[in-house]
This record gives sequence, structure tokens and C-alpha cells, in this order.
Amino acid sequence: MAKKKRKLKVIPLGGLGEIGKNITVFEYGDDIFVVDCGIAFPEDDMLGIDLVIPDISYLTKNREKVRGIVLTHGHEDHIGALPYVLKDLNVPVYGTKLTLGLLEQKLEEHGLLNNVVLNVVKHSDVIELGCFKVEFIRSTHSIADSTALAIFTPVGTIFHTGDFKIDYTPIEGEPIDLARLAELGKKGVLLLMCDSTNVEREGYTMSEKTVGETFDEIFMNAKNRILVATFASNVHRIQQIVNAAIKFGRKIAICGRSMVNVVNVAMELGYMNVPEGLIIDIDHINKYPPEKIVIITTGSQGEPMSALTRMASGDHKKVEIIPGDLVIISANPIPGNEKLVSRVVNDLFKKGAEVIYESLADIHVSGHASQEELKLIHRLIRPKYFMPVHGEYRHLKRHANLAVELGMSPENIFIMDIGKVLELTNDSAKINGSVNAGRVLVDGLGVGDVGNIVLRDRKHLSQDGLIVVVITIEGDTGNVIAGPDVISRGFVYVRESEDLMEEIREVCKAALQKCNDKKKNDWSTKKSIIRDALRDFLYERTKRRPMILPIIMEV
Amino acid sequence: MAKKKRKLKVIPLGGLGEIGKNITVFEYGDDIFVVDCGIAFPEDDMLGIDLVIPDISYLTKNREKVRGIVLTHGHEDHIGALPYVLKDLNVPVYGTKLTLGLLEQKLEEHGLLNNVVLNVVKHSDVIELGCFKVEFIRSTHSIADSTALAIFTPVGTIFHTGDFKIDYTPIEGEPIDLARLAELGKKGVLLLMCDSTNVEREGYTMSEKTVGETFDEIFMNAKNRILVATFASNVHRIQQIVNAAIKFGRKIAICGRSMVNVVNVAMELGYMNVPEGLIIDIDHINKYPPEKIVIITTGSQGEPMSALTRMASGDHKKVEIIPGDLVIISANPIPGNEKLVSRVVNDLFKKGAEVIYESLADIHVSGHASQEELKLIHRLIRPKYFMPVHGEYRHLKRHANLAVELGMSPENIFIMDIGKVLELTNDSAKINGSVNAGRVLVDGLGVGDVGNIVLRDRKHLSQDGLIVVVITIEGDTGNVIAGPDVISRGFVYVRESEDLMEEIREVCKAALQKCNDKKKNDWSTKKSIIRDALRDFLYERTKRRPMILPIIMEV
Repeated sequence: MAKKKRKLKVIPLGGLGEIGKNITVFEYGDDIFVVDCGIAFPEDDMLGIDLVIPDISYLTKNREKVRGIVLTHGHEDHIGALPYVLKDLNVPVYGTKLTLGLLEQKLEEHGLLNNVVLNVVKHSDVIELGCFKVEFIRSTHSIADSTALAIFTPVGTIFHTGDFKIDYTPIEGEPIDLARLAELGKKGVLLLMCDSTNVEREGYTMSEKTVGETFDEIFMNAKNRILVATFASNVHRIQQIVNAAIKFGRKIAICGRSMVNVVNVAMELGYMNVPEGLIIDIDHINKYPPEKIVIITTGSQGEPMSALTRMASGDHKKVEIIPGDLVIISANPIPGNEKLVSRVVNDLFKKGAEVIYESLADIHVSGHASQEELKLIHRLIRPKYFMPVHGEYRHLKRHANLAVELGMSPENIFIMDIGKVLELTNDSAKINGSVNAGRVLVDGLGVGDVGNIVLRDRKHLSQDGLIVVVITIEGDTGNVIAGPDVISRGFVYVRESEDLMEEIREVCKAALQKCNDKKKNDWSTKKSIIRDALRDFLYERTKRRPMILPIIMEV
Repeated sequence: MAKKKRKLKVIPLGGLGEIGKNITVFEYGDDIFVVDCGIAFPEDDMLGIDLVIPDISYLTKNREKVRGIVLTHGHEDHIGALPYVLKDLNVPVYGTKLTLGLLEQKLEEHGLLNNVVLNVVKHSDVIELGCFKVEFIRSTHSIADSTALAIFTPVGTIFHTGDFKIDYTPIEGEPIDLARLAELGKKGVLLLMCDSTNVEREGYTMSEKTVGETFDEIFMNAKNRILVATFASNVHRIQQIVNAAIKFGRKIAICGRSMVNVVNVAMELGYMNVPEGLIIDIDHINKYPPEKIVIITTGSQGEPMSALTRMASGDHKKVEIIPGDLVIISANPIPGNEKLVSRVVNDLFKKGAEVIYESLADIHVSGHASQEELKLIHRLIRPKYFMPVHGEYRHLKRHANLAVELGMSPENIFIMDIGKVLELTNDSAKINGSVNAGRVLVDGLGVGDVGNIVLRDRKHLSQDGLIVVVITIEGDTGNVIAGPDVISRGFVYVRESEDLMEEIREVCKAALQKCNDKKKNDWSTKKSIIRDALRDFLYERTKRRPMILPIIMEV
């Protein structure tokens, strides 16, 4: 009897059917390795949640098999969960210099730096992780030092793009290594895993360099202070601001904690080229005339606590917006942040600043490949099987459609959910079973202690507030000896609703009387009768449904 | 001595520096009239609020002067506050037939229909309101029967565009009456008040008719059921769906309460042309083959309770999405709704539907004028003074910039806040003083009973939940005879946090002990000592700040 073929398993634990928390497991026999380990930002209904990390219980259950974690680039949605995950699963981490430089900072903040093995790789390096070989291939994205991965497995080669665009004129170093992609494609690729973020956009994504040209034009005509808000991690963007500042004789001040951190790391590691003395302390900006200053700041997404938002609302300690300031928001709002950004723009205009934002000039380009770039990748790699990754369902679906248009057979394309297992041999692929996958919510110091019940209660409280009714009864007789006292929060403005509060007490008393009449004396029955009576009364009176908490104290 | 010149006052009570709740007051001597009276949708931080209406205390204080309310068109942000306002300020209302037809429905729902005087006007009609004459001028917008207004006042003519675009090929009736605008401009206009919504868009807004052409193309190629989601109020859009259905032999079913209502009103009043028998009952859709059916539905904004959202999530009672269904979302997401719409698109794709949405085809056009249309209005009206209206501050500011580019002097342009008073004579204009203006929050049956304190509490509860601590003490001795009992909601999952709950009780006991030691026996001191102790303990342990409610019962 022929030996049963062993199979390769590819298991996305995040990043499919959602934006963020990218993480994928590759497993063959006794070997597992992981690509990326990112966070997602909380959805609107995750009230009070700080961030979301992937459920990695599948990995901790198989911890003896896990050979390492490979990182494609240093964005939060690809490395941000590591400080949480490495506490539980301490395995070697591999990534390029800047990626690990950014990770180091995070680990240091979490007090983890000394416990973790970080292995710096260069482009074209090949590492071995059990039976896997992983080659790092130069790529281009909205952060420096990003890589694509060729993963050589016992059943064939997998090509994983990571997040990417095809930028023929990157700011630093070489463009994406198309020759190597072509070579891999020629030798035969079993599975392509390709970024789907911008699959809805026609044509090509513009080169990062075009933004620099816009900066030059703006800087040339500016007569006052310039402030530029952008993503802290976009080192190339920041370099272009630096270049424009040099060209037009301005000093640079850096504002916002993450901006300061990233610029420091990038300069230390040689990813930015900044002449001595160009960067000045933010405390010294007023020593220079306005036309000699550029301030680079966080807050391009209108985040409420960010530097730019504070400047716009007049709450920033070091920078005050003055009429004539020119503010450039060099970013597009991430879906969900549109109103936050809009508020900042309004506030800046009100303070007399000029504001250049998305609808006004080419001051931002995306870091993700548009349709024509995706087509190029598909044509070069010519995979047998295809799994669209990094995107909501609609992106994955449309990326699948694009592959079909390019001639792939639909049965060779796998739109996956997180936790689903794709099993591959050298001549077959199918979805077979699933493993634990999902989200773990981080709230303050708590990791995973806020679940659906807590969120449901927060939602309920946020909509109509709360009524607490407290009654003290005598244990022996069941007689009420204090209360009902009524406390409300987030329901109505109490001072103007004293009559309503009095009525609430009456409703409680009547409900209690009913309990006594019917000899319903156990506490939980009493509580539920009070709750029902109050709920009906309040809905009738106000058409609102506050949370009702009856509390009975026995003495 | 010369008699002091009387002045015209123009006072926006809403719609400037914000999107929605449009309302403007015109006052001269003892005469006041009002243009529009709309709602705004709650901002993200107005938790639990249903809608926002303008503060009209300035009008109720001057109620004997108010001659009437003039409506420009039937959108919620122009008529939606009337059911609340007319209860308090019952004055005659003037508007075109469809506008008042839509208003009638609202008033009926609020049981107000019999108490209100509604006066139907036609385009070119002139009405008198005290010393004012108001002429209704045909306009085009994303709802039928919209009007601009020429307001003849003792100090000069005001031209108010209302919401508008310049559509040379409207679906029904004549285009906007440019000849009359030119004539007014030639005779001299003192003040232009012009819609600023789309001032950030270059060029021209496309004609509504272009959407019909896209529908035709899509319908021609569709082989299965078609569902179209759009704004219920866009009667012309719905008419174009009807036209395509007729052309390609499909029956129509209507879904969603507001869609049914508007179609009924529009058909009754002659604004839609629908052949007998074309519309079928939603219960009968399965009697026809899929290629013979179009379903027109609400939910184009992904509103959680809307028909399309329910269909997408499988919760709709009458319509189940089946693979092959073609869903057209004929609308753009209003800022803030992007993620809701995205979720619906994902869910529809998952159910096997094809979905055509904003990034895919020309299935929607805006109802507001872009830059070139605005320029045409400015050139035709040639006003002495200009007040940009309908927009956030950035829109107003950029509209002002556009007017300056067209040659207006900046001192003749007034960017106003709501409540500010613009005083005009026939040769002067200045901002002089202000009146009460603002927002009134509607939550369930409550109008204005939810204010900042209630919202702040809802926000607090939504972020970290709540801890209630109840203690019963003996009045005479101050001894604790029951408790502390701890109840938490929305904080942590209690079953997994029993240790924490026990620690909370210990912290309370220690705090109480401290009170006794220091002889601090008044309740409010005790409560605040407990609250502080718990707050510090919980932040240290969890980095969260739940609301803490200490309750002391005395027996």
C-alpha cells in the first residue's frame, strides 16, 4: 500500500474577512512557522476596547512545533500583537532591520526585550525553519524594508506578497525584485497568497515619489509655517518632507510620541538621511521665523489624543496654530475615521490655518497595489492555486474574480475564513476542517477578559443609561426597612426629573407589594418582578430602555 | 435728525458649521419668517440619541412676529424638525406639493395633521409674509419639486439657493430656472445664500439622467433578480428604476417602510409615472421567475434596522438573498456610514449575490452643485454680499475662497456661526450680536431631557462599565450590618473575576474602616472615600476607569 501523502496546511488566523490582525500559519508534519502577527483596531461596537489581537490558541496547543515567526514589514497590523503573543509563545522572530527595529521599541515598552530572540535578515536571505525554507524578497510598500516571501515547502513553493505596491521609483533602494518573481514563476509556484486591499481600484497606484513633487511645489510657494501630518511609520514620506525642508531652507521639528520614536529608529538604522542640525527641538520653534520651520506631526487620522488634533483644538502644550499656518494632511482617512479627520480640518480652518487635505492635492498615495499591479503579479507568478489575503470579504471576492478574468479556474481559487485549513499536496488543494481562530480583546491591562456579555452591557449602558434600585429588607419578616432608593446615570437629567424618580419609587413599592401578596419571597423572583415592572413603566413613559439593576440587601 | 435706518436681520439657527438641521430666520421690524426646519443625525459622541433638532427659543420668544415657515424641499434635514417645532410654534407652512405631501405623512405619524395649516405653492408663485415677499423658483436637486427662493425685503433682494444642483436634463419637468436667476441678478441682489455641500468637488455634478443610462445597461445584462437600494426620497431615481423595469419586462416590489410611504405619496401626487399592475406585493415575489423581478429597497446607508441590512444578514421576513441576485447600491455612503455600508456589501457577497456599489459603476450622482455650477450661480446672481450656507466650516470657508476668486471682496463675504446675526441695509452688512441657537437632542419621547451630563455618563459607562457597591449601616452606631455587596456591569466578565470582586469588597471595607478611624461619618464623605479608594485600586490593577457608584443604606 502506498504511503499516505503528507499534506501542507496553510491556516490564516487573521487578516481575511477583516482589515488587520494579519497572521498565517504554515504547517507540515511536526513543523509550524508563522507569517506576521498584527493587531486590528476595534470595531465601532467594541466599546472601550483598546485593540484586538488574534486568538493563537492553535499555536499554543502546538507550541513544541512552532519554529519561528517571520515578519513581512513593521506596520501595526503585522507586528503589533507580538508583545502579547510572545509572552505566551516565545519563539525566534525573523525580519528585516527596520521591521525589527520598530518591534524592539514595542517590546521594550512591554518590558520584554531581553527575553526574545530577534534575527535580522536581509533581502535575498534564505532561512530554514524545520522543513521550510523562507526567502526574503525585496518589495515596496508604505513603509521601508518590506518584503515578500518565497516559502519552499516539501510539496512546492508558496509566494506570499505581504502588503505591497509596485513602485518603480521608490525613495530609497531598489524597486520590488520583479526578476526574482519571474524566476519563481517560471520554476513553478504552487500557491499565491496576494494582498487584496486595493483590488477595487483600477489602474496603478502612484509612486511615492509623486508626493515629493507635490511637497516641493507646496514648499516653494509657502510663505509661513508648514505643518505636515502623516503616518509615523511612513519613513519614505518623512524623508521626502526632510528633502523639501532642506531644499527650501527650513528647519524641522518633530511632534507626537510615535513620530519621534520612528524617526529615531529610522535614523539610527540608516533608513533616513538627515543632515546634522536640521532637526530642532520642538521647544525652540519660536526662535525661528515661521517661513523657516516645518513641523512633522502625528494625527493624520484625527485621532482624538494625537498631536495635530490637540493643536487644532488649542490643547497642545508646545504648538499653537497661528493664522497663516499651512497644514498638510498627507494621508487618506482610514474607513471609519472620516468624521474625525473632518473635525480636525474644520478646527484648523477656524484657527485661520490653510489646510491641504485629500480633496485638494496629490499629497498622499496608497501603499497597496491596484488592479493592474495585481495582474502583473498573477502573470509573473503563474500559480497553480490562489488564496487572496488581506482584505474584507468583498476584497477577497473581487480579487478572486480578477484571477478568474486572468484565466484561473474558479476551483483553484480559495476564499478562506480565518481558522479554515487549506490542505495542499504537490497536485491538490482543498479546504479541510478548521481550527480555533478569532479575536481577543485588549482593554487596559486585560487581555481577553472582556467578552460578548461585557460588550453587550456597555452597549446597553451607552444607549439609555442605568437605573439602580436598592431596597433593604428585614431577613426574618421580609419587611422593607430602607428604600427603595433610586440612582440613575445616563438616563435623564435627574434634577429636572424628580417627579419621574418619585414615580419610579412608587412602581417599585407596588411591585414589592405584589410579591408579598403572592408570597413570592425569594430574592431573584422579587428582583425580576421589580425589573419587569420598571422596564414596562419606563418604556411607556419615555420609550427608552435603561439597564435596570434592582439590589436587595437583607439585614 | 435723520430717522435711524431699520435693518434686516438674517439669522441662521442651524445648517452652518454642521451638516443638517437647516433653518434660517429673516427678520425686519415686527415680521419674521423662517426658511426650512430640519433635523441632524446624532454625532458619534451623542450616545443613544435618536435625532437632533434646532433650538428655536429665539422664535418662541418672538412668536407673535413669526408669519410662517417656507420650505425649499422635502428632505429630512430641511423638514424633519417640524413635527417637534410646530407643537410649540404653530404657524402656517408653505411649500411645493411633494414637499408638503412628505411633511403631511410625518405630521400624521405625530398626530398633528389637523392642527397645522399647510399652503401648497407652485414654482413662480409669490407669497407675502408681513413685509416680505417670497418667490419660489424652480430648482433641481436629488428630490423632486425643490425650489430656490427670491426673498424681497424692504432693504433689497436675497437669493437663497436651497439645496441644489444644475441639472440640464432632469427626469421630470423643467430644469432650474436660470433665466429668472439672470433677471434677478440684473435687477440687483443684496445677498446670496448658496449651498456649499459640494464646494470641494471640481467640475460639474452629473445629471440624474446618467444614472438611468447605467440602470439600462445593467438591467439589459442581468439574468437574475435585481435589488436596488436607494434613498426613499429620491423620487426621480425610483422613477428611473421603474423605467428600466418596464423596458426590460420586470415587475417591481417595494421594501422598507419609508420607501413604501414615499412611493405612495409620489404616485398619489403625480410625481411618479407607474403603469397599473407594475408594482406587485412583496409577498408575491416568489410567484415570478427571478429575471422578472426588481425589488426597490431602503438601506443604501447600511442602517442597522433597514430592509437591505436585514436581507444581507438573513433577518428579513419577506426577502431572502439567493445566489445570483444582483444588488445595486445606488447611493454613496454619507460620511460616518462607510463601515456600515461595507458590512452590508460583505454580507451580500457572502450570500452569493453580485453587488454593484460606489467603486464599481456610475450608479449614483450627487444632488449638490460642484464648483463650476457654483460659479455659474455667483456670476448670474452677482450679489453685493454673500453668505455661504449648508456645510461644515471647511465647506463655508472654501466657498468663501471661491467667491473671492470670482472677484468678490472678502469684506463682503460672511462666514457665519449659527445664532450670529447678519444685519443688512440696502448698502451695508455686518455681523452684529447673536441670539440663542444650538441643538436639542431627541431620545425616545424625550425632547431636550438629555444634556451634556447624561451624555458624559453614557460615554463613561460605554468605555469601562460600572461598579455598584452597596452597604447597609445602622443609623445609630454607623456599624456595617450588610454588605459591601458588589455588582458590576460592562467592566469584566464576573465569573472569571471572582478574586477581583473579593478584593473590591476588601478595599471597600478598608476604606470604611478608615472613615470610622478618622470619624468621618457623613455619607457623602464616606462615599467619596470609597470611590477614590476603589478608583485607584482598579486603575492600578486593570488600567480601566469604570464608573463607581457607592450606595449607603441606613436602617
